[in-house]
Amino acid sequence: MYCYFKSNTRCIVYSVNGPGRPAGPAADTEELVLTAALKLVLSEGAAALTAQRLHLLTGVARTTIYRHWPTPKDVLAALISVAPHPTPRSTGDPVADLHLEVDLLCDRLRDKPVGAFLRALVTASSADPDCVPLRHRYVMDLLEPFRRALGAIGRPGERRIEEAALAIISPLLVEVLLLDRSVDRRHAHRTVDEVVRDIG
Amino acid sequence: MYCYFKSNTRCIVYSVNGPGRPAGPAADTEELVLTAALKLVLSEGAAALTAQRLHLLTGVARTTIYRHWPTPKDVLAALISVAPHPTPRSTGDPVADLHLEVDLLCDRLRDKPVGAFLRALVTASSADPDCVPLRHRYVMDLLEPFRRALGAIGRPGERRIEEAALAIISPLLVEVLLLDRSVDRRHAHRTVDEVVRDIG
Repeated sequence: MYCYFKSNTRCIVYSVNGPGRPAGPAADTEELVLTAALKLVLSEGAAALTAQRLHLLTGVARTTIYRHWPTPKDVLAALISVAPHPTPRSTGDPVADLHLEVDLLCDRLRDKPVGAFLRALVTASSADPDCVPLRHRYVMDLLEPFRRALGAIGRPGERRIEEAALAIISPLLVEVLLLDRSVDRRHAHRTVDEVVRDIG
Repeated sequence: MYCYFKSNTRCIVYSVNGPGRPAGPAADTEELVLTAALKLVLSEGAAALTAQRLHLLTGVARTTIYRHWPTPKDVLAALISVAPHPTPRSTGDPVADLHLEVDLLCDRLRDKPVGAFLRALVTASSADPDCVPLRHRYVMDLLEPFRRALGAIGRPGERRIEEAALAIISPLLVEVLLLDRSVDRRHAHRTVDEVVRDIG
């Protein structure tokens, strides 16, 4: 069971539009629909994200689904928004942080969500150019914790940080996304050590 | 204009089935249809590879197209088969070979075919699991010249060669396939130098 929700950051806007209908979906409706949408994306890809399928899976009225998530792109965008961005839980040692983060990413790749989600984003953005920024954002979110930790080692330039973060995560993404292989944790940790040595 | 054909390797089988209809398409038909198919894949993705579209673009009868390439998967497989695998043009110096190969790959990424083709393969294989081996094969073909040159440096093990080849091409694939950025040749060459140092 995949769970992308972090309830402490969910933003429910009930009153800004006056006393009438709430502007956003109710929290339980949102969780119900997006949990079903995530399962659907992971098992069948982005093309399955129709209001009809989501209605059948959740019992939520199609009009409600259409109102809050008019297109598959909106469902994907909502899934990315509620995805747990790894929290900045620095140990004080940037190298230890990098090893923690690479373990976290390996977990997320092993448990399927990241690879399947990326594949869904590639597929969705080839059918709908509006989904391209979602794909960029998702990858940038994956890079972010590595950029943060790398920036604390030897004060490299922005460019060097970006290259080093890509050197760590790219082989993992290619193995999972393109070659359907399982991640090799020891290799991922060796890559971190090599990158740290090159940047230090 | 993209051209994937290398006519010296095209295999036309006219006589094995006796004097009747040839087993494969005529050479000019094959070139006409696959050139149109490649343009279609690069501009609109794998979903556009219907016999109807190929017929409209080439004038080749739909029955002919169906006979030789019954599904979009068959068209993609044919495109990969006629794609030019970089020839083993070793300079005698494996490091120089790696720099030549990375320049070749950067050219193919800059001119769009590799990125768009990979995206088409990801999309096609999410709709049709039979396309998954095509995606694997395409990436393995991209890795092959790097594996060959790396194998000649310091005699590393198979595993180490594979990791090193992935370290060189993965950041390029992620930048083009997932982030829609242009390739950074200087960075690619620096990666080669770092990988060679680590493996040597």
